[in-house]
Amino acid sequence: MSPELSPVAGFNTLRRIESSRIFQGAVIAIIILSALTIGAKTYDLPPLVEQSLTVMDNAITVFFLIEILFRFAACPTKRRFLFDGWNLFDTIVVIGSLIPLDNSEAVLLGRLLRVFRVLRLVSVVPELRFLINSLLKAIPRMGYIALLMFIIFYIYAAMGALFFADVDKELWGDVAIAMLTLFRVATFEDWTDVMYATMEQYPLSWLYYLTFIFLTAFVFLNMMIGAILEVMSEEQNAKQAQKAHDERDEIARQLQSVQAQLQELTRTISERR
Amino acid sequence: MSPELSPVAGFNTLRRIESSRIFQGAVIAIIILSALTIGAKTYDLPPLVEQSLTVMDNAITVFFLIEILFRFAACPTKRRFLFDGWNLFDTIVVIGSLIPLDNSEAVLLGRLLRVFRVLRLVSVVPELRFLINSLLKAIPRMGYIALLMFIIFYIYAAMGALFFADVDKELWGDVAIAMLTLFRVATFEDWTDVMYATMEQYPLSWLYYLTFIFLTAFVFLNMMIGAILEVMSEEQNAKQAQKAHDERDEIARQLQSVQAQLQELTRTISERR
Amino acid sequence: MSPELSPVAGFNTLRRIESSRIFQGAVIAIIILSALTIGAKTYDLPPLVEQSLTVMDNAITVFFLIEILFRFAACPTKRRFLFDGWNLFDTIVVIGSLIPLDNSEAVLLGRLLRVFRVLRLVSVVPELRFLINSLLKAIPRMGYIALLMFIIFYIYAAMGALFFADVDKELWGDVAIAMLTLFRVATFEDWTDVMYATMEQYPLSWLYYLTFIFLTAFVFLNMMIGAILEVMSEEQNAKQAQKAHDERDEIARQLQSVQAQLQELTRTISERR
Amino acid sequence: MSPELSPVAGFNTLRRIESSRIFQGAVIAIIILSALTIGAKTYDLPPLVEQSLTVMDNAITVFFLIEILFRFAACPTKRRFLFDGWNLFDTIVVIGSLIPLDNSEAVLLGRLLRVFRVLRLVSVVPELRFLINSLLKAIPRMGYIALLMFIIFYIYAAMGALFFADVDKELWGDVAIAMLTLFRVATFEDWTDVMYATMEQYPLSWLYYLTFIFLTAFVFLNMMIGAILEVMSEEQNAKQAQKAHDERDEIARQLQSVQAQLQELTRTISERR
Repeated sequence: MSPELSPVAGFNTLRRIESSRIFQGAVIAIIILSALTIGAKTYDLPPLVEQSLTVMDNAITVFFLIEILFRFAACPTKRRFLFDGWNLFDTIVVIGSLIPLDNSEAVLLGRLLRVFRVLRLVSVVPELRFLINSLLKAIPRMGYIALLMFIIFYIYAAMGALFFADVDKELWGDVAIAMLTLFRVATFEDWTDVMYATMEQYPLSWLYYLTFIFLTAFVFLNMMIGAILEVMSEEQNAKQAQKAHDERDEIARQLQSVQAQLQELTRTISERR
Repeated sequence: MSPELSPVAGFNTLRRIESSRIFQGAVIAIIILSALTIGAKTYDLPPLVEQSLTVMDNAITVFFLIEILFRFAACPTKRRFLFDGWNLFDTIVVIGSLIPLDNSEAVLLGRLLRVFRVLRLVSVVPELRFLINSLLKAIPRMGYIALLMFIIFYIYAAMGALFFADVDKELWGDVAIAMLTLFRVATFEDWTDVMYATMEQYPLSWLYYLTFIFLTAFVFLNMMIGAILEVMSEEQNAKQAQKAHDERDEIARQLQSVQAQLQELTRTISERR
Repeated sequence: MSPELSPVAGFNTLRRIESSRIFQGAVIAIIILSALTIGAKTYDLPPLVEQSLTVMDNAITVFFLIEILFRFAACPTKRRFLFDGWNLFDTIVVIGSLIPLDNSEAVLLGRLLRVFRVLRLVSVVPELRFLINSLLKAIPRMGYIALLMFIIFYIYAAMGALFFADVDKELWGDVAIAMLTLFRVATFEDWTDVMYATMEQYPLSWLYYLTFIFLTAFVFLNMMIGAILEVMSEEQNAKQAQKAHDERDEIARQLQSVQAQLQELTRTISERR
Repeated sequence: MSPELSPVAGFNTLRRIESSRIFQGAVIAIIILSALTIGAKTYDLPPLVEQSLTVMDNAITVFFLIEILFRFAACPTKRRFLFDGWNLFDTIVVIGSLIPLDNSEAVLLGRLLRVFRVLRLVSVVPELRFLINSLLKAIPRMGYIALLMFIIFYIYAAMGALFFADVDKELWGDVAIAMLTLFRVATFEDWTDVMYATMEQYPLSWLYYLTFIFLTAFVFLNMMIGAILEVMSEEQNAKQAQKAHDERDEIARQLQSVQAQLQELTRTISERR
């Protein structure tokens, strides 16, 4: 299955087909349509439409499978193939699509995997790929702030579970439930109902909610500002460095020309001695 | 109806009238007043006020109609006239205003079109025109992020429709309804009620809501930051480019003067040989 | 009451007293305390505390009255005095404080005016004064966006009043009530209840709510970005201009010294001819 | 207990142990585990797990106590030790952990203090420490805006308590309760319920809520923009200053070399006289 030239030629043909605008448009259209049918199983579709979409859907699945096999075959170092996030992502989505939709007991799982195929759009449309890459870059930047947020949530949840468990077992029963309740408070969702209930037993518990909301909002606000500044200073740095470099080049070039003229003049005078 | 000079002269007179501050103020006032009456049909107004406003309203409609016909007549290339967004917008609003308000069966549509006449304010007030133009510029920038958001919504809606349809048909009946429910969750509107209902059958479904909220908020936050940075870097680029250009000019001018002095000196010395 | 020197001397003494740190602290403390008593009339306070605070409160009122009269007397052009916003503000607050609190029929108005006296804090604390000034500067910047927002609200409210008045008179009865309902929708406050009610009669009315929410959020988001950029570019312009000026000065100074050296050299050579 | 060398050597050994990656990881793991057990007292854990965790918990407490005593012993000026915020923070957390958990009447307080031990994570993980430091820096910047916000809240609360106390004693009974209600309105939590209740008695009271919401949102928005700009201009200043300095250095160096060449040339010519 791995003669030396044929896979590369096949891969090139495949690539040529794939990169044609018409083909890409067709692929995107069929992904969207097939995704729509999966999602729209609850609606009653005419059987002809459904069957033709299933056929196209299978064709796309087969095509993606062949494409990924060729890409894997053409990759010089097999191990590096799977270290590239997008390859891994494509492989998982394609393998997920291969599980048959046979209306048997695993039908729910099968459908779920079909749903995720709409994610294939992200790796097909370059702009979305670029967008996802830039979003992923923002994750480490937000990691420690998320940890800090978690600590705040945890401490408040532990306090809540200690004091308010008697008030309402369903909201403050244990730390996990209390954290969910606090997340609800952080989204301002009926948080006053939660507060008024605990204030009946602990009249000062409004302090608990207000400090929590202020802490959360304050950390979140600073997180946002920090994120904006961090990205901006990087962008700015790159641009300012380039600009400073260009200016220095320009000045240096002109000053060198002045120095050259001076040397020329010095030589002229020296020769006349 | 199209003798060579009269429309241009008529148009110029019209323009002169239109650009006078008093006339503009009167037009804006009557647009607002007529819009108010349309909206305030539910209130009982004295018939004299209502009638006089209707007369003024009709006068404005006729004036705008004449103005747009003249503008169209004066436009050298008729096809380009409709390609300009603001002309098209004005034409549609004016034509919409011509549908008679005769209290018959089409009265609701007629009133609706009258309501949209308040949009004429936007093309009359230059600052609003400028504002709308700058808002329209922001749309493509947000297009792919909207697409990504839609994919996230779609996948979660399909999952929701698959699993939660039995819990509440009215919230998770099909993908469209599920997307509406998820939009509600994204606005934090009674989202815990939705969650608590599904948690009774699927105790781990809080994971579904929390990941959805985090994904949505994370993408939205980055969208905002990205939009700020994009506009900013454009602004900054223009300014920095201008500044760098000015500085380079200044340096170049002074260095050229130095080089000129050096050449003069060299010539002086050479002549002395 | 206006001999030539005494008011100036009196005003200077007053100023000297007023600008002393201890006095300022005392004034701020008494404003806060008196504001607290006014607000806390619902609590039962010991009569001694209440009486002593009333005395101090009256002393402050008299002092502020005297101070403002002196300031007015010392002002060279009387008409300009009232054109300064802070003077006008102080005068109104002080006059408002003079209305007696006699527990008769006007007691509610009197108390209300006493409440506003806490605003005097803003003109006493310089940092708050500075803050208010910078907030006021932001108002015109946001004016046209507010107008655009109002037009969006108005059109949607007129549409809502036309179509949904039958569904719920209390939410969509007339344009004014509909605008209040839309403001509620814009704050996401139980907006799905409003939507579900109208969707029973008009199943497509979710389009109305979603487009409204998107328009509002989009315009608001751009407003925020615009405001950030506008302030920023002003700040940046000032700094960049200063920096460019400094750099140009530096370069010019050094290049002038080079040119001077060259002239010196040329003269030296010329003299040797 | 204070011979001259041994504490320093002991401290160094301790430091070496403490700074080893394995030890740090273990400490973090145990802090997390012990925090989890405290929070998870509501769950039923097998007694063996609970006991072993209590042992580890005590070991950690003893270790932190010894570490802080050594740090205090090694500190050259004892008074400065407690002026450093992080030292004070660590000391309080460690002392708080020493209160015995004997399931007697003080059990709730003891547990609460154990919960706060998770904050020790913040001083152990350097990135979190850095984050907290930068958050603390943002506090003074927001102080006066918080004061302004408080004044707005106070005036509206006093007005609300004056007018609406008859409508609902539980929401507007006194100024403190009214401020809590207004905070609820500011988070948009069922604010329309509050408004509709007061509108029955005071039909114009929507003005009160709308002006309050606009004022709050406007001040908050400007606070955010101000905070972003302040931090940014500081960052920008530092960078621009460095960049301008570097550029000036570069230009100066090259121009000095030109001047040197000119002096050399002048000397050459002078010598030939």
